[in-house]
Amino acid sequence: VSIPWNNRYAQRIEGMSCSAIRELLKITENPKIISFAGGLPAPEVFPFREIEQAFSRIIKAEKTLGAVSLQYGPSDGYLPLRQMLGSYPPHTSHNLAVENIIITSGSQQALDLLGKIFINQGDRILVESPTYMGALQAWNAYGAEYITIPSDQDGMQMDQLECALRSGPKFIYVLPNFQNPTGVTLSLERRIKLVELADKFGIPIVEDDPYGQLRFEGEDLPSIYTLDQQLHTRKGSSGQGNVIYLSTFSKILSPGMRLGWVVAPAEVNQALVLAKQGADLHTSSIAQVIAYEVGKDGFIERHIQLIRDVYSKRRDTMLEGLDKYMPKEVQWTKPHGGLFLWVTLPEDMNSEDIFPVAIANEVAYVPGKAFHPHGDGLNTMRLNFSYSNPETIELGISRLGKVFLEAIKNRTYRVF
Amino acid sequence: VSIPWNNRYAQRIEGMSCSAIRELLKITENPKIISFAGGLPAPEVFPFREIEQAFSRIIKAEKTLGAVSLQYGPSDGYLPLRQMLGSYPPHTSHNLAVENIIITSGSQQALDLLGKIFINQGDRILVESPTYMGALQAWNAYGAEYITIPSDQDGMQMDQLECALRSGPKFIYVLPNFQNPTGVTLSLERRIKLVELADKFGIPIVEDDPYGQLRFEGEDLPSIYTLDQQLHTRKGSSGQGNVIYLSTFSKILSPGMRLGWVVAPAEVNQALVLAKQGADLHTSSIAQVIAYEVGKDGFIERHIQLIRDVYSKRRDTMLEGLDKYMPKEVQWTKPHGGLFLWVTLPEDMNSEDIFPVAIANEVAYVPGKAFHPHGDGLNTMRLNFSYSNPETIELGISRLGKVFLEAIKNRTYRVF
Repeated sequence: VSIPWNNRYAQRIEGMSCSAIRELLKITENPKIISFAGGLPAPEVFPFREIEQAFSRIIKAEKTLGAVSLQYGPSDGYLPLRQMLGSYPPHTSHNLAVENIIITSGSQQALDLLGKIFINQGDRILVESPTYMGALQAWNAYGAEYITIPSDQDGMQMDQLECALRSGPKFIYVLPNFQNPTGVTLSLERRIKLVELADKFGIPIVEDDPYGQLRFEGEDLPSIYTLDQQLHTRKGSSGQGNVIYLSTFSKILSPGMRLGWVVAPAEVNQALVLAKQGADLHTSSIAQVIAYEVGKDGFIERHIQLIRDVYSKRRDTMLEGLDKYMPKEVQWTKPHGGLFLWVTLPEDMNSEDIFPVAIANEVAYVPGKAFHPHGDGLNTMRLNFSYSNPETIELGISRLGKVFLEAIKNRTYRVF
Repeated sequence: VSIPWNNRYAQRIEGMSCSAIRELLKITENPKIISFAGGLPAPEVFPFREIEQAFSRIIKAEKTLGAVSLQYGPSDGYLPLRQMLGSYPPHTSHNLAVENIIITSGSQQALDLLGKIFINQGDRILVESPTYMGALQAWNAYGAEYITIPSDQDGMQMDQLECALRSGPKFIYVLPNFQNPTGVTLSLERRIKLVELADKFGIPIVEDDPYGQLRFEGEDLPSIYTLDQQLHTRKGSSGQGNVIYLSTFSKILSPGMRLGWVVAPAEVNQALVLAKQGADLHTSSIAQVIAYEVGKDGFIERHIQLIRDVYSKRRDTMLEGLDKYMPKEVQWTKPHGGLFLWVTLPEDMNSEDIFPVAIANEVAYVPGKAFHPHGDGLNTMRLNFSYSNPETIELGISRLGKVFLEAIKNRTYRVF
């Protein structure tokens, strides 16, 4: 008898779907294809020498750091790394206790653990549309449903938020800085409004900030976490705040180390750590000790300047290419930082239909549908500018311009 | 207003409880306490030099291995590592395709992902009693319930199994080699019976084998995976078998790297990878590339001999200490490998009640209740012999002997 495995799975597997990006990455492994589909940092900015030196120090100290880096460790993370993060730039003003900071196996694990501790089957999560598909993938497994709020060049639109909050979502999920996928930044005015409305309705906010350190121009805006702390201080409230803040070493050090962190009220972190024990016991000790040894003397803050310079130039090249090669019907965002920008075709066009034509022309993007929980956004797509060098970006955008020009022409032809 | 976080959690958080071991480890961090409570490998057997050399090679190859080790990687794992595992000793006879092997963030993650893809609220899992508490912790979060089968010195008892299988458990979970917590090994006769009954009732088996390579004496027994493959070959069935096999690098290389693997039918691995994408995208690239570079020329097989020698001596010391110091009322298992043995006090005694006395006498163990899904086993405990050196083991067992002698005397006193 052949065993029918497909009859054995849990119900929740129906909600889980393969990440379109990761499937696309397989197609785009062909080295002839210029891929703007991934979200990979540029390997040219990996700090090989600093990591080599740190690791050599660690592994030679067999009785101390070496043993710690190869041994089981605490589920909440390597204490020196948690302490270091407490005085890391996004958090210097927060006066955090170490209990407010835990380490996760990448930000993706933080999203999964948040789903595990908060989401009951059928709970609704309030998200921007479009939003980060990895969050949808994590939460679909817990039976989440979604209330979507459209966004524009200033991020999540506030006029629909109050009405949506009245319907009682479990939490609000927002990527305020150089959002994935759109690249747009939530304005200060909207951040303040968001924090006030969330407090008014008693709905917590999950602030996902993987790119906040990668600003190329303009002033840093206060985080939603910061604004919420200020609100609660003003009100003299006794709670620890209403915001759970996520970030990651993936874009400022190395994604292959799989290191993220959560800043949250101590009681929320306790629940997350409980879930983390069952999920993977703890995050790789070796990765945590390396990150601490590389970062403890301020190297990461200096290194970020290099990353900003490289990505800023690549963004400029992509924006210039879009200006030069795109038909006039095509629109795109102009991010002030991060890794991505967002392209919008005329409303009746479908970026999934055009995808095979792009592949035939050896250029790739991610169709926007995957970032929309309700499957809309068919005329949109995400482009990554961090991975390819400027020459490749220009060549790739010129190919894409040709593909869209042709697609728009054919469409016009069909209309007549 | 103070935000009431405790009203916001998902229902499943009620089933999640803190690992007793990890809480105990905190108490036992006091260096004066001799702790047999943890499950830590001996840092003396970490291969520092080989890891240092491998990492140096990796990170210097900036364009190839170095970039791979710091970059995002595939969710199913680093391909050369998966290929290496296909010809690794437990699997040499299996003729595995690479699709049958995926990498997880430690075996603990494999347990969590199995829960995610298989367990609906209220599903019953058939386990040995006692069993590995980390599995219970992972599956409680998905609403699992448990059917327990008692075990003796030959592992899970078969006489109750058929009746239990009739009640339709979702799967059978078994640790056949040097079981955690008891240290006992499932006999060949029972393995064959288990595979046949599971096939007869169409219930899959999850075989958890973290210690199988660490045999100190006697002959290796065929894995349950192997016996199932043989059964299906004999029957000429077209399926890919009925067993999901888990193992880990934690006990043969380093637990701090958080590397485990799953051997399963390709379709099960596809479901696990889908769940893994949402859980942490992929396992640390840096850890995977190091494990491959350290292991590719057969170093791990040679290294295991050293680990066996060290642990075997420590087990001997612990068994001699138990013979020498324990009151006659106390019984224990005599494992042929692994990291643990299991101590049984007279039935009316409670190892949790005695625990504070042991701590006062500067020695620690894990009370057995935590390994019993239904909270029985009050008179039992787990002792670890891998972490402490022989002198410390003898001293610790002499302290424990004194504690139990006193406890048994007091109990006798109360009885009269």
